[in-house]
Amino acid sequence: MSDLVRMSITMDRDLSDRLDSLLEGGRNENRSEFIRDMIRCRLVEREWEQDQEVLGTITIVYDHHSSDVNRRLTHLQHEIHDNILATTHVHLTHELCAEVIIARGKASGIKKFADAVRQQKGILHTAFSPSTLGKVES
Amino acid sequence: MSDLVRMSITMDRDLSDRLDSLLEGGRNENRSEFIRDMIRCRLVEREWEQDQEVLGTITIVYDHHSSDVNRRLTHLQHEIHDNILATTHVHLTHELCAEVIIARGKASGIKKFADAVRQQKGILHTAFSPSTLGKVES
Amino acid sequence: MSDLVRMSITMDRDLSDRLDSLLEGGRNENRSEFIRDMIRCRLVEREWEQDQEVLGTITIVYDHHSSDVNRRLTHLQHEIHDNILATTHVHLTHELCAEVIIARGKASGIKKFADAVRQQKGILHTAFSPSTLGKVES
Amino acid sequence: MSDLVRMSITMDRDLSDRLDSLLEGGRNENRSEFIRDMIRCRLVEREWEQDQEVLGTITIVYDHHSSDVNRRLTHLQHEIHDNILATTHVHLTHELCAEVIIARGKASGIKKFADAVRQQKGILHTAFSPSTLGKVES
Repeated sequence: MSDLVRMSITMDRDLSDRLDSLLEGGRNENRSEFIRDMIRCRLVEREWEQDQEVLGTITIVYDHHSSDVNRRLTHLQHEIHDNILATTHVHLTHELCAEVIIARGKASGIKKFADAVRQQKGILHTAFSPSTLGKVES
Repeated sequence: MSDLVRMSITMDRDLSDRLDSLLEGGRNENRSEFIRDMIRCRLVEREWEQDQEVLGTITIVYDHHSSDVNRRLTHLQHEIHDNILATTHVHLTHELCAEVIIARGKASGIKKFADAVRQQKGILHTAFSPSTLGKVES
Repeated sequence: MSDLVRMSITMDRDLSDRLDSLLEGGRNENRSEFIRDMIRCRLVEREWEQDQEVLGTITIVYDHHSSDVNRRLTHLQHEIHDNILATTHVHLTHELCAEVIIARGKASGIKKFADAVRQQKGILHTAFSPSTLGKVES
Repeated sequence: MSDLVRMSITMDRDLSDRLDSLLEGGRNENRSEFIRDMIRCRLVEREWEQDQEVLGTITIVYDHHSSDVNRRLTHLQHEIHDNILATTHVHLTHELCAEVIIARGKASGIKKFADAVRQQKGILHTAFSPSTLGKVES
């Protein structure tokens, strides 16, 4: 439980008004939250640039009839099984599945894994979300 | 099961060589797969621009001690429960959780939901992956 | 000349420390500037989403020997000449030129122009910078 | 003048039809150009990742009344004057200017310069376009 810091920011009324137009509600509490949110986004970007320990989510859409995609995906995951936190599988249509893999580890390792997945034959689409294990602000 | 089309692409040897340098292995099969993959990525971008029916994954990192984030996240999900396919919860540290929500529906609706999540107080980071329910290529 | 607004933002000491680590110097003045900068970036993103009057820069790299790229680029620019503020041409190598076009107008119109440029045969690369005519903060 | 390579790509008719829907016109020539264009985009991304010699365009919007932005921008440019190919200045409104700087050099150096510009007080917005000095395909 860290203590609270109060900082004072100045800006033109024009920018302040336009900031409020970005907020839902526009009350002061939202303003602080909006600014904290932007700071945290920049911190997460830097974690990935600096190859720190991070969290990443990989969303894969594929045809489960297609040859042996499933087997190859499982094989790839086992190669870095220490880094896989969870895998969720949903059925989209008669043919298509989505598989969402939550991984933690060094940024470069997670990106490399996502690239290996993307290059598998039979995969329709791979999407990638960089996130964070960031220090708690309790 | 749709039939196969063979198309012929010309390019300078220089570009062809550099294409091969992008591939792991550089065999012809990879080349076709690499090009199909790029085409599919463009198609998915267009689905989102044209507000079609899509798949999206939202990754949320938050402190589960923090007030009532969990309750509010659950509430938000119930409001669009028809669009939520699955939610996976993992424990990152003593304080932090990650929750990954897989949603399908109109692109604009999923983006609106992700924005509502992002603006919740107590959330450390939200990451978003646009994906597809794309037609199968069997 | 609009008047100054002072707003007070609270955050955990941990987040405040990490914010300072993002700054060069870390003095309070930089902090305000950093936060104002993030707000302005979000406002510019919204201008483009809402198809407002904006500024955009298109960077084109092409081989000036190649057929008639130059003529076609000139033709495309004349079609929206009211929107082109300036075009700068630099010689990169014996074969390659870069042309940078500064355009103002509705976001959708500038994007459409950039797409038309990108699809010209003989162009090596097109890059696009969305910017703003944003209200002055004097 | 390098020679031409013809490569053969197979895909499902469904993907082929959807590829055509991405093209203006849909003739075969466009298809080749569209695919070459995607390959070149990937190559440019890699040049920036691998910190190669590249081209970058920085678009800056600022209030020219504001203190001494102009002087500081000039100073920053002189520090890397060997890398600046051209600077174009346009007058947007009574108060606002846009300045577009075309730079060549190592990717990391150009990004560092763009960051230094962004952090100047008095600048409304900075946008950045990564491009290429890429080998010619004549």
